Amino acid sequence: MFETAELGRIISKQEYKLSAPPLREELLQLQEQLRQAAQTQVILLFAGVDGGGKGETINILNEWMDPRWLVTRAYAPPDEAERQHPEYWRYWHDLPPRGRIGMFLSAWYSQPILDFVYERVGFHDFDARLDRILAFESALADDGATIMKFWMHLSREAQERRLRNLEQDPLTQARVTERDWENWTRYDRFVETAEHTISRTHTGKTPWAIIEGEDANYRSLTVGRMVRDELQRRVTAATSDVTARSATKAKKPRRSKVRDKSGPKTSRRAPTVLSTLDMSRTLSKQDYQAQLRELQARLHSLHLVARKQGKATVMLFEGPDAAGKGGAIRRIGAAMEARNYQVHGVAKPTDEEVAQHYLWRFWRQLPRDGHMAIFDRSWYGRVLVERVEGFAGEEEWRRAYAEINDFEHQLIDHGVILLKYWLHITKDEQLKRFKLREETPHKRWKMTDEDWRNRERWEDYELAVHDMVQYTSTHRAPWTLVEGNDKRYARIKVLQTLTDKLAAALDIEAV
Amino acid sequence: MFETAELGRIISKQEYKLSAPPLREELLQLQEQLRQAAQTQVILLFAGVDGGGKGETINILNEWMDPRWLVTRAYAPPDEAERQHPEYWRYWHDLPPRGRIGMFLSAWYSQPILDFVYERVGFHDFDARLDRILAFESALADDGATIMKFWMHLSREAQERRLRNLEQDPLTQARVTERDWENWTRYDRFVETAEHTISRTHTGKTPWAIIEGEDANYRSLTVGRMVRDELQRRVTAATSDVTARSATKAKKPRRSKVRDKSGPKTSRRAPTVLSTLDMSRTLSKQDYQAQLRELQARLHSLHLVARKQGKATVMLFEGPDAAGKGGAIRRIGAAMEARNYQVHGVAKPTDEEVAQHYLWRFWRQLPRDGHMAIFDRSWYGRVLVERVEGFAGEEEWRRAYAEINDFEHQLIDHGVILLKYWLHITKDEQLKRFKLREETPHKRWKMTDEDWRNRERWEDYELAVHDMVQYTSTHRAPWTLVEGNDKRYARIKVLQTLTDKLAAALDIEAV
Repeated sequence: MFETAELGRIISKQEYKLSAPPLREELLQLQEQLRQAAQTQVILLFAGVDGGGKGETINILNEWMDPRWLVTRAYAPPDEAERQHPEYWRYWHDLPPRGRIGMFLSAWYSQPILDFVYERVGFHDFDARLDRILAFESALADDGATIMKFWMHLSREAQERRLRNLEQDPLTQARVTERDWENWTRYDRFVETAEHTISRTHTGKTPWAIIEGEDANYRSLTVGRMVRDELQRRVTAATSDVTARSATKAKKPRRSKVRDKSGPKTSRRAPTVLSTLDMSRTLSKQDYQAQLRELQARLHSLHLVARKQGKATVMLFEGPDAAGKGGAIRRIGAAMEARNYQVHGVAKPTDEEVAQHYLWRFWRQLPRDGHMAIFDRSWYGRVLVERVEGFAGEEEWRRAYAEINDFEHQLIDHGVILLKYWLHITKDEQLKRFKLREETPHKRWKMTDEDWRNRERWEDYELAVHDMVQYTSTHRAPWTLVEGNDKRYARIKVLQTLTDKLAAALDIEAV
Repeated sequence: MFETAELGRIISKQEYKLSAPPLREELLQLQEQLRQAAQTQVILLFAGVDGGGKGETINILNEWMDPRWLVTRAYAPPDEAERQHPEYWRYWHDLPPRGRIGMFLSAWYSQPILDFVYERVGFHDFDARLDRILAFESALADDGATIMKFWMHLSREAQERRLRNLEQDPLTQARVTERDWENWTRYDRFVETAEHTISRTHTGKTPWAIIEGEDANYRSLTVGRMVRDELQRRVTAATSDVTARSATKAKKPRRSKVRDKSGPKTSRRAPTVLSTLDMSRTLSKQDYQAQLRELQARLHSLHLVARKQGKATVMLFEGPDAAGKGGAIRRIGAAMEARNYQVHGVAKPTDEEVAQHYLWRFWRQLPRDGHMAIFDRSWYGRVLVERVEGFAGEEEWRRAYAEINDFEHQLIDHGVILLKYWLHITKDEQLKRFKLREETPHKRWKMTDEDWRNRERWEDYELAVHDMVQYTSTHRAPWTLVEGNDKRYARIKVLQTLTDKLAAALDIEAV
């Protein structure tokens, strides 16, 4: 794979001096256009052999472009806060918003490759980690991110020469560490690992380029030109995209009309997973109060144990408007110390959130070890409201199932206890509650026109929920469907399943 | 001071059951109105004697209000990332945006009080830390934040009773630690320290309320009612504010007219600190290139030493449009590893930033130890563009000098090396550069109408700069004024002073 990067290509000082300034101007202008269009986030990743010029290339690009809109990230071993979150938390945290460029030094490739080179993990684990990388990069690329990955290569001899040269220059000697020489002795295994890594993670949307790293002029100009060409393509695409959009805007049919004509209505009325729920379940007030007290006391102890064991918990609640999500959450919160949990209401995204992948805001809100996050609506909005209202295109919400599964598995791999609740009510029950809210002065502010609009799409939502459960209720991250027409019954079911799951995950005998 | 909180006040279960539900409804509605107005951020701080019910009161308020718009924060000793930033970094980080409520458990009061109680610091240091608290809270309150502080008090005997009761209940026994009993043995000194703390930090805008902590019903209702009353006042003020504003909107004179009439023009033309600069200084190309190379090499070594010593550096650049800030920054960046520094261009604030105090975004961007942040424009926008354009009222920009000095001193106290550059050019030189930019195709995008508008206010800006230097060029955080008509001279002066300051701060012999 690397033969093409051992050709000894060199660009003379003279040629470099002629070519670099106009290239720089082009990059600067493209960067500005990119920023103004704010349509794609650019991720440039540099990995490769030690001494192959990863860092220098990043430095040159920083010099050539406007550093105010660049982010450069290199990663030390995770610090305390990073260890208390899933592995990819810090990478999500560092993503540039749309319109900006992020440069990443080795980043998510570093640990998997080194662990395999030094035989700290077997082939199976190594491959699983490459799968994670693939999923991560694909999710971003599918969302419109521009991802370019550069592998800086040196032959064994060239690497030795290069490390020796760096050591001799007082300005650069600090850069060469014992670790670099240790890596060098494993050159062959390193290259083999690199080959496997590159072939597994090279896709049409997340391509690798292998760059001959020996000559600084050659690698700088080569990388610079590749970045220029890709930015050029992106900027052109963004512009024509805008034109195309405004041209078709007038023609775009209103969602509701599409719905009226699309297919036979019966297909929408097919039984869904929700039809299996026995919505007549109830619980007497007396039973409710006794069980509530008991379960809350149990939850109180369990959440302190979770805190002590450093286990994080993520709970999410979805369900129709007025299904009682807030009430259930309050019963949970009342049993815990406020400092140990945070409720996140998923409202309209802020402009920082809009400029990122839809999962980004939830990565930001993940609890650290020992803490609990309760989401009142969640990332499932992608396959519920965004699907039904047409905010996400079909291709977008269809691939979201896999993205969400991957996201949740990352949480679970890190040790997070995950609970997903669908609180269901019937259409009639919702109407009753809406009317009650409108009649009760201090509850009126809870009602908006949107609630009535959402209600009109009841069947669409049922179908979306059916698909959601089908694709995302996995063995490791199952949905709990809760019959919610009777609030008492629903709250007890939530508390019961929650405490059972916590007790099991914390390895505590159920009370 | 605490006699009024040892009266043994009790609210019966019956009275509580009658009063709590309507209070809860009022709080919920006020919270919603607050959120919709989004004018003030509410900070509720709870401190006091162990066992005084700080945590329980926070829990109750979480139960009563809508937890989606609440943030609750308790603080453990700082973790790795927190230690690598100034002390208040984490508090700034956790502030609720306007429209939301944050509840803080002891927070910034905890360490100063305990350190003094346990005689780890003397009275002088203790007082300095109370000053810091005062400055912090005042900055927020002046910006419109609502700050309420509750001191939960117990008599010595009541505290003992309470700790014993907590220990006897299996649900709460984990809450009582050895530390609590240790604190109890120092009860008198603790109360004395509390008295001093409260009197020093009790102001009209940041008041303390002393709450009798023994009876849960009493303290919950009392705190809840106080919060309700204050929110009520704020919501009313916000509403009438909006009314008043829209009423006077039509009458509000345009800035430019005000300027034309305000005072004799000569007062604007009085010599400013900028008149003292010798703007004719130049440097030959040859000298420039030799010095540039040498200084960049020096900077390269110095920034690696800073990284190793874990010293953070913050540099900021202010100056008229086209003064050459970007060029100077690029010469600095070119001498360093991109992974060690980040350039922040200060553009229009995002909506998350708008919802916070103007210093909040800069707290977010502070470098961690060993890293460097370069600000292309900075927090001084408050006393420059915001003053001149009238985006900040006179009262706002006038108090900003003290807020900024305090902010910068916090950086320096933490060990940050701070450099502040004013890059100056004459009005004629700016015109020359503007014209050149407009004539050069690939530079044209740099020019906006705003640049021409800003130019019309040249004299206003000179006065603002004069005041800025006068009030914020302190012994510990001095401004460096740079004569910038000759770009070569300016860049060398920046690099020279930067490397000198770094060498001194890092305790390295100048080369």
